[in-house]
Amino acid sequence: MHKFINEQLKSLDWSISPKELYLPIGYALESGGKRIRPALVLMACELFGGDKERAVGAAMAIEVFHNFTLLHDDIMDNAETRRNRLTVHKKWDANTAILSGDAMMIKSYEFLEQTPVDSWSKIFPIFTRTALEVCEGQQYDMNFELCEEVTLDEYFNMIRLKTAVLLGAALQIGAILGGASNDDAQNLYDFGIAIGIAFQLRDDYLDTYGNENTFGKRIGGDILCGKKTFLLINALQNSEIEGQDKIKKVLMDKTILEQEKIDIITSIYNKLRIPSLCEETMADYYHRALESLSKISGHKIEKEPFTRLAQQLMGRTD
Amino acid sequence: MHKFINEQLKSLDWSISPKELYLPIGYALESGGKRIRPALVLMACELFGGDKERAVGAAMAIEVFHNFTLLHDDIMDNAETRRNRLTVHKKWDANTAILSGDAMMIKSYEFLEQTPVDSWSKIFPIFTRTALEVCEGQQYDMNFELCEEVTLDEYFNMIRLKTAVLLGAALQIGAILGGASNDDAQNLYDFGIAIGIAFQLRDDYLDTYGNENTFGKRIGGDILCGKKTFLLINALQNSEIEGQDKIKKVLMDKTILEQEKIDIITSIYNKLRIPSLCEETMADYYHRALESLSKISGHKIEKEPFTRLAQQLMGRTD
Repeated sequence: MHKFINEQLKSLDWSISPKELYLPIGYALESGGKRIRPALVLMACELFGGDKERAVGAAMAIEVFHNFTLLHDDIMDNAETRRNRLTVHKKWDANTAILSGDAMMIKSYEFLEQTPVDSWSKIFPIFTRTALEVCEGQQYDMNFELCEEVTLDEYFNMIRLKTAVLLGAALQIGAILGGASNDDAQNLYDFGIAIGIAFQLRDDYLDTYGNENTFGKRIGGDILCGKKTFLLINALQNSEIEGQDKIKKVLMDKTILEQEKIDIITSIYNKLRIPSLCEETMADYYHRALESLSKISGHKIEKEPFTRLAQQLMGRTD
Repeated sequence: MHKFINEQLKSLDWSISPKELYLPIGYALESGGKRIRPALVLMACELFGGDKERAVGAAMAIEVFHNFTLLHDDIMDNAETRRNRLTVHKKWDANTAILSGDAMMIKSYEFLEQTPVDSWSKIFPIFTRTALEVCEGQQYDMNFELCEEVTLDEYFNMIRLKTAVLLGAALQIGAILGGASNDDAQNLYDFGIAIGIAFQLRDDYLDTYGNENTFGKRIGGDILCGKKTFLLINALQNSEIEGQDKIKKVLMDKTILEQEKIDIITSIYNKLRIPSLCEETMADYYHRALESLSKISGHKIEKEPFTRLAQQLMGRTD
């Protein structure tokens, strides 16, 4: 599936005029990534017996939209690199990244228009609602950096919007294009939401407890920038006032060495049993995902790819 | 029509969560403007006997999309004010303007989805193609600032994309929603392209030859920033090498006082008979517009609003 999607992406010609607008789109799309969202669209379509050709336009739409959000997020975060290459606004400039991003988002609708017309009334509203939700998630994420306190509800709402809904929509749209009933498509959406949230929890967990070689980023990065993760929010919530003050003081203290800061906060997390709380919550969402999957009509064997996918995302495979 | 559109816009609630994302959209939309594009959608719908309620979603979509382009253009141009108010990126910041703009563009599709589903297969591809063309026009306009020479063909292509196609699409989409035949909708599109180009030519003309009180901007602004307008491109094209060098030298000379620079270039334009060339070209596009209008089925009296509109845009009314 990964190969099929990359072939589809490679067949697109971005050397059209004005090249200043389109070349950065090609650059942003060729940078790789796991292509998990378009794969979900095609897998969902096939689960209900649809030919994946029916869903290619939607798969491209979702992948192009996802990469558009990365392109604009990178301007907002002033990120230097993505997937080991310069970001578009660093390789070109911010204006190029803004306008090429805009064109990219419109392109995603052009791809969606390649799907069979009789499905449009169902899939367009899902795509549009989801696209807005992803913007809302990004806004909440930016808000979190500026606010003192974030509740667990606010945290779950943010990661649902920023990460999970696009996975859910990819599955729901693919299911509809494959001929699924509304209920089946909704259950597959719910499956996507649950694995999306579990995946984000795992990302928070690995940022502190992962292995630097397999995680690919520096361990403790979230602690150093004081990010409101599932770990930190729970640590604050499960501490008395005194403990909360200690955590906040350590996070803001610029005189403590980086590794020392990571060690202090990690040991506080350990004392509060945050790692096992995190694992339990991930397992909870993992089981919710499987429950949604079990409600879908069809044989267990046909749903095997989705079970495997959930396992992979949760790191439950060898 | 103007009042009806403003009432529709006022009925929208932008104080929803996250307010950091949605309030700037409300701010951008409440700043007024002539609302000409949504008016064109509704007028076109009514020309073919359609109830304007069928086309309200498309009218809002086009107006929201247009204001989204202004919002992002203002970041790229680093503009301080628009319609006598601070631009969004000055009132808030660039990140807010980027993300709220993104949400606004997605919102435009949400409005388009309020049109009758049976029209989607026709109007969505027009809307999407046009939105991409507007981005291309903005890119060419930015390219022009950096390139030495711009041909008349390149100039007309740029203003067609940046200005005219959205007027054309507003009319074509409105016509389709009103029940027009494909030919009638296409002719109304062509009418929109022609008045759009004529209007832009008039804007170029008035920037040098207008009356400061009625034009609303300083006369000679285009000359001072060396903008590649219809006037300048023609002046260069109709001069010998020597004359071209003189124009370029004056435009780049930072020691000449502003008013003197405007006077020198204007007198060169006058000698080259650029004002009458501009008037003739405007008249040509005005007549092309009326010709496209005449091809549309229906009585002349029903098309009266469009004739009047063309006259208004060309300043041919008292």
